[in-house]
Amino acid sequence: MSSEPILKSHRRPGVETTVVSVRNVRFGDGSYPVLAGPIAVETEEQIVDVALAAAEAGVSMLRSAAYRAETSPYGFRGLGEEGLWHLEHAGKLSGLPTISEVLEPGHVELVADHVDMLEVGPDNMQNFVLLRAAGTVGKPVLLHRGPSATVDEWLMAAEYVLAEDNDAVVLCERGSRTFDPRTSDTLNISAVPVVQQMSHLPVVIDPAPTAKGHDLVKPLALAGRSVGADGLVVATHPDPGNAKAGNGGQLDLAELRQLREALGIPSRRDEIDRVDRELVKLVARRLHASVEIGRIKAKREIPMRSLDREAELIGEARDDAIAVGVDPDYVEALFTVILDHSRRAQRAAIDLDSSSEKAD
Amino acid sequence: MSSEPILKSHRRPGVETTVVSVRNVRFGDGSYPVLAGPIAVETEEQIVDVALAAAEAGVSMLRSAAYRAETSPYGFRGLGEEGLWHLEHAGKLSGLPTISEVLEPGHVELVADHVDMLEVGPDNMQNFVLLRAAGTVGKPVLLHRGPSATVDEWLMAAEYVLAEDNDAVVLCERGSRTFDPRTSDTLNISAVPVVQQMSHLPVVIDPAPTAKGHDLVKPLALAGRSVGADGLVVATHPDPGNAKAGNGGQLDLAELRQLREALGIPSRRDEIDRVDRELVKLVARRLHASVEIGRIKAKREIPMRSLDREAELIGEARDDAIAVGVDPDYVEALFTVILDHSRRAQRAAIDLDSSSEKAD
Amino acid sequence: MSSEPILKSHRRPGVETTVVSVRNVRFGDGSYPVLAGPIAVETEEQIVDVALAAAEAGVSMLRSAAYRAETSPYGFRGLGEEGLWHLEHAGKLSGLPTISEVLEPGHVELVADHVDMLEVGPDNMQNFVLLRAAGTVGKPVLLHRGPSATVDEWLMAAEYVLAEDNDAVVLCERGSRTFDPRTSDTLNISAVPVVQQMSHLPVVIDPAPTAKGHDLVKPLALAGRSVGADGLVVATHPDPGNAKAGNGGQLDLAELRQLREALGIPSRRDEIDRVDRELVKLVARRLHASVEIGRIKAKREIPMRSLDREAELIGEARDDAIAVGVDPDYVEALFTVILDHSRRAQRAAIDLDSSSEKAD
Amino acid sequence: MSSEPILKSHRRPGVETTVVSVRNVRFGDGSYPVLAGPIAVETEEQIVDVALAAAEAGVSMLRSAAYRAETSPYGFRGLGEEGLWHLEHAGKLSGLPTISEVLEPGHVELVADHVDMLEVGPDNMQNFVLLRAAGTVGKPVLLHRGPSATVDEWLMAAEYVLAEDNDAVVLCERGSRTFDPRTSDTLNISAVPVVQQMSHLPVVIDPAPTAKGHDLVKPLALAGRSVGADGLVVATHPDPGNAKAGNGGQLDLAELRQLREALGIPSRRDEIDRVDRELVKLVARRLHASVEIGRIKAKREIPMRSLDREAELIGEARDDAIAVGVDPDYVEALFTVILDHSRRAQRAAIDLDSSSEKAD
Repeated sequence: MSSEPILKSHRRPGVETTVVSVRNVRFGDGSYPVLAGPIAVETEEQIVDVALAAAEAGVSMLRSAAYRAETSPYGFRGLGEEGLWHLEHAGKLSGLPTISEVLEPGHVELVADHVDMLEVGPDNMQNFVLLRAAGTVGKPVLLHRGPSATVDEWLMAAEYVLAEDNDAVVLCERGSRTFDPRTSDTLNISAVPVVQQMSHLPVVIDPAPTAKGHDLVKPLALAGRSVGADGLVVATHPDPGNAKAGNGGQLDLAELRQLREALGIPSRRDEIDRVDRELVKLVARRLHASVEIGRIKAKREIPMRSLDREAELIGEARDDAIAVGVDPDYVEALFTVILDHSRRAQRAAIDLDSSSEKAD
Repeated sequence: MSSEPILKSHRRPGVETTVVSVRNVRFGDGSYPVLAGPIAVETEEQIVDVALAAAEAGVSMLRSAAYRAETSPYGFRGLGEEGLWHLEHAGKLSGLPTISEVLEPGHVELVADHVDMLEVGPDNMQNFVLLRAAGTVGKPVLLHRGPSATVDEWLMAAEYVLAEDNDAVVLCERGSRTFDPRTSDTLNISAVPVVQQMSHLPVVIDPAPTAKGHDLVKPLALAGRSVGADGLVVATHPDPGNAKAGNGGQLDLAELRQLREALGIPSRRDEIDRVDRELVKLVARRLHASVEIGRIKAKREIPMRSLDREAELIGEARDDAIAVGVDPDYVEALFTVILDHSRRAQRAAIDLDSSSEKAD
Repeated sequence: MSSEPILKSHRRPGVETTVVSVRNVRFGDGSYPVLAGPIAVETEEQIVDVALAAAEAGVSMLRSAAYRAETSPYGFRGLGEEGLWHLEHAGKLSGLPTISEVLEPGHVELVADHVDMLEVGPDNMQNFVLLRAAGTVGKPVLLHRGPSATVDEWLMAAEYVLAEDNDAVVLCERGSRTFDPRTSDTLNISAVPVVQQMSHLPVVIDPAPTAKGHDLVKPLALAGRSVGADGLVVATHPDPGNAKAGNGGQLDLAELRQLREALGIPSRRDEIDRVDRELVKLVARRLHASVEIGRIKAKREIPMRSLDREAELIGEARDDAIAVGVDPDYVEALFTVILDHSRRAQRAAIDLDSSSEKAD
Repeated sequence: MSSEPILKSHRRPGVETTVVSVRNVRFGDGSYPVLAGPIAVETEEQIVDVALAAAEAGVSMLRSAAYRAETSPYGFRGLGEEGLWHLEHAGKLSGLPTISEVLEPGHVELVADHVDMLEVGPDNMQNFVLLRAAGTVGKPVLLHRGPSATVDEWLMAAEYVLAEDNDAVVLCERGSRTFDPRTSDTLNISAVPVVQQMSHLPVVIDPAPTAKGHDLVKPLALAGRSVGADGLVVATHPDPGNAKAGNGGQLDLAELRQLREALGIPSRRDEIDRVDRELVKLVARRLHASVEIGRIKAKREIPMRSLDREAELIGEARDDAIAVGVDPDYVEALFTVILDHSRRAQRAAIDLDSSSEKAD
């Protein structure tokens, strides 16, 4: 233990936790994002239904498998590429970033083309060829701990991704193989602070393999947040009893909403109200500032409207829109309205000023 | 699994969790009592120091061993009966109920004479002779899970105590033997809700065997509360580096206070202030009520002071004092003052009434 | 790992394995003694039947519990002292040394009065009070490994017995708790050579906890001998399906005989024949030698019979008998016959010599 | 457990163990073939040296990795295709069949082109894509058990290969993850008979992961044979201390020879002597038979030499040579000598007959 190697995955003294961003989701910044979805994409309708319900329930990311690591050769192996298209579509409709499992090196690029984050499952934690391939494609990677992997082996597996110059790795503790049939893959909650002390990588928990057959998801989700985990993976399905894969361990959509309430996550509707209020305030501040600028221009007799400046401003807004994954035309339309109103307010203010000047 | 026996430890449908009371401490009522103290009683001074600091930090019970289950025959086996006297003394000085481990059937009565609760350690979870003996002595029992015991075996061990008609059993999850050297006895947090579903007995957690050598006590204590545990066991020592037993895994007293703050437990000083405020309010309400009674008596010309009534009242207060573990002489002294002041206030009020009557 | 303590149980360089003798049975001398018997003594008839069948099958020791470590408080806890009397009786009838489990310190002397070797079960491996008590009573101890004890913890438990100046400890590997339900307490056969490298104590195996519900006893018994174990524990019962304890894992008596054949153990009958042949040869050699001595005496005119010499010889034989656990009266009776025949043969030889001398 | 599926890997009542043949090696016929070689092919010289020493020591197959499942991304990943060429060459020189690990689906055909048997390592036991690929290429597969896989999961992994209509699967028990640091991946010897009862597939053992740092290979190899395993995997290296991979757990070549002696495997030299004696006997029988045929032909006046018959015979011998992996030219050369000598012996015999007839 004394001469441990210095690895890229290890935390150097004084170094903060790496924040891994997947569009608007942040792992490692103190938040507790929830990744939810059915074990497998079954139909377009199923994944769209889950995606909309998950978004409404305040979930952060949509997670589902198109390629499944199925224990039996006679089980459901997933829809393959078709499933990726459905998942991408559901992500767009719901506005949620997406994550899906990759099973073989030859599929890494294909999966990466459709989703925002790749997932490497517990069975493949030491599939080193796959880890290398996943590291090279430029997408964040969620790396599950193998059911009998030590923390050191888990970090060494992460090192395979980091060694390809991809720092965007999130670790997932999902339970270790133990002797007790009642919690056979037992969530090792203490692994969360142990990893956080040893490594700068964020670590999330997945209670499903422990919780199977018990009502344990909610208490373990709460415990995970208290212990300092950087997120939560939850399996959910519109009709768990008839799921094609993973039946038994998935929450139905009502249970998902109850979990959201237990975690105190605002519903999407509440969030919209809050965002709307913020928007109104921002628009007001913008208007106020632009009126002030208008007045200064008027005093200095600078022309009120600069078409170059407006074009530049709209161009920047479009770039920003693309960067955060919003349609730039939509943003341009918004800004057209905003700029139009600004000009009218400026004019009204100046007219007011000049009439009052005249009044002096 | 289909034909599981119906055991006394099993939860029957609709039956609530058994609340186990140890003086003013409650296990199973939704609270999260903290049991703290050094692994072993070393000297009178040491255990008294810890007891006072623990009481100040809002700890609920004082825990320490006079008889130790020491892995090595050449290690410190505890002070024996002398240690029990020190522990009892420290408990009285600090006002904390006490708990101590019992190792052999022949010592059960002796230990029970000195402490409020018996502890059966993980090494002895299947020492069935000891379990039977512990069940017969009429004190609550804290039963640790063995490092490789299944939940079913653990409940069956509790059944040995329950079979002796002792229902006051609290279970303690303290981690199972696993393969990972970084958390070798790994706390199975999921065992808490599993046990709560299967059994009506309260269950607490002890993070120490998992946390050894890591700064894991605080996050695991928080996770335990979130998952719904009925209490927390913490090892603490004034100078952990020089402890005679269990060195390495014990918090020092400053760390204990930090843990209290993390858990949001009010310090004893804060609690005293709050209790004092409550006391003042209660005394005021009492005074007000007694003055009203005095006036009614005066109007009806009933004698103001009834020595019988006062004796009865003081007798009841003394009984109550004994019931909650407070010196009845102290309570009698308090009530003498209270009654004395009541009478004077009554008289003052009546004098005022009669003078105002005269004034009419 | 670098600064491991030097323990009495550890093997110092160049030190041979301690041979633990229980009457005529040797652990650690390269032999593979078999300890067999029912999990619990149920009736006198049952234990006598097993004892005689076991002796006939070449078993080395009779093993059964009078005090049982029963997982459930509602199960069969054994016959207690009555069981010890039955076991002792069966041991005497069959000529087999006996071993029985001890559960509490207060019973150690009682059990030791009835059997040749004490057994401390896996549940009590870290019942340190019991280990100390077992160490003081002067009988060899068979110490089972706990289901989640490391090899180091197991040796430290043995150290408790050795620390009481009792070197006669035999270790028993019986499987560790693992995740696979098909071999849940999994025999760790590699522990045998590991212990033999670390310690000078003999180590035997008990396949029963691994073998439950499978036909695994025979292959594991063979593997144990090949890996170098110093003996084998086997549970056997005349009617396993109706056993009061441990039903399911016990061989019936026919299976015990098959095991003996697989191990190549000569049956008792074969062994008797062999011993008888050896006895005849030894008696013949003795007779020949004594006749020669008689002739020399006759030539030198020394008196033929020395009562002092005969008394001394018989005294020594009685001492030897006691040392190997045989009734000295029986041995004296044998030697009376032998000496009587010797004298007659001497006389016949001398008469023959003198008549032939006369004939010269 | 009651409604277990009927799988291709399961043993149906009365069905014998599948014998998997790799050239002249048989798994499942009661023999105990030894697969030996260095963890990784390092240079042509290294693998040739090991191959010749292994062949001389009576080893059955040459095993080494060209593609390595290396825990660290900074470790030695093997020589790749170059290593396969060296391994194939060493196999031909030594006459040993070869086996090598395959890590990814895209390499299955390449590896299969160079070796006689594919190996799927413990890290990849649930790499289902790889298992399917390995099943389709028409070569026997050695499938290691994952360090925390149950027997049922292991058989389900084998089922992936069997489902591709490849019955030639050999299972390899190599130890499970446990808590004891002294034997951390602990060989579960009882899994051998458990698998043999559940499945018709042969099962071999690999003691190396258990034996690391201890002198345990020899006792475990012996135990494996006694428990009924169908073969043994041994890691061996000319200079284990300087191995590029797996240093610490490999036997040097002298230790390999000692293991062979412990197992009672005849050395190659002994085997050659024995084969030579057999050869001489067979040649003599052949000669005798051919002389008899010659005499009959002579009597019936059939022509002595049939060029068609000789060509056919040599053609068959060449086919047989190819089938068992021997150079057909070498066999043709041998038969040319044999046939030539046969004819001369026939002629000599007939001449003798006719001269003796004349003598009549």
